[in-house]
Amino acid sequence: MSLFLEDYHRGDAIALGTHLFTAESIKAFAAFYDPQPFHLDEAAAKSSVFGSLSASGWHTAAVWMKLMVAYELKLTTEILARGETPGRLGPSPGFRQMRFLKPVHAGDIIAYTTSVRATEPWPGRPKWGLLLSDNAGVNQRGETVFIFIGRVLVERRTPLAQK
Amino acid sequence: MSLFLEDYHRGDAIALGTHLFTAESIKAFAAFYDPQPFHLDEAAAKSSVFGSLSASGWHTAAVWMKLMVAYELKLTTEILARGETPGRLGPSPGFRQMRFLKPVHAGDIIAYTTSVRATEPWPGRPKWGLLLSDNAGVNQRGETVFIFIGRVLVERRTPLAQK
Repeated sequence: MSLFLEDYHRGDAIALGTHLFTAESIKAFAAFYDPQPFHLDEAAAKSSVFGSLSASGWHTAAVWMKLMVAYELKLTTEILARGETPGRLGPSPGFRQMRFLKPVHAGDIIAYTTSVRATEPWPGRPKWGLLLSDNAGVNQRGETVFIFIGRVLVERRTPLAQK
Repeated sequence: MSLFLEDYHRGDAIALGTHLFTAESIKAFAAFYDPQPFHLDEAAAKSSVFGSLSASGWHTAAVWMKLMVAYELKLTTEILARGETPGRLGPSPGFRQMRFLKPVHAGDIIAYTTSVRATEPWPGRPKWGLLLSDNAGVNQRGETVFIFIGRVLVERRTPLAQK
């Protein structure tokens, strides 16, 4: 999304791509950042509320970020190839309401999407604004497994007049 | 926090330990999950809104999880050593209001804490309940850099009577 804030319109939606969660990748992520038994071991997962090996929610979320950044990089490359200037993306001041609705099991393929929810001014930063997005991951059975409202600072094409 | 739901009381606070964010670890995490220039490269970070190399918010959050799981493991070991039964921790249905209030720069040492906010029933799961926690990361200058409200399922010592 390397556009300027003015280029985002409510409802604009983007398919970010899919990701296969292998048992190996679930265990590798968990070993580093979330070493709970139901993310690390098939037998332990079987006797847990998950019923079988399941990805850490942080893993499910981090893959969203990875696909989002890959999308932005591709978009920036295209904008530069057209001889235009891409808008800069700033940091995220945080997000809201991250929900893990269903487990992500080994072998699941998650399709990630993002869509524009709103744009808002960001107090004290006339050259930037806040982009709010609705984000989701849906598995191969059409079940939504993961949602959150993203918030990120985006450069304005035209800075707001300061009062 | 490998206790039973009934053992948690509002305001109970735990220091989870500190973590040094080295430039190397910031870049390594970012290369995998959040490869934006201000997380990968000192020069790019200097010309960004961050001003110097800064950790991905996902990195800051994942370290919280890592320290939390280490704490739980230690507590479980102690409970078992006393010949008692630890409560089981279930998955997180998601969290709320994750905020990245200040950048985490290379060289920063973040102290992480968690405290009990509330416990609630979890509809349809009489053996489990929801633990809500207030979580924070504070840097070596005493500035809070990161907060969120955690939500995780915790086993009850005594299942709720079903209506």
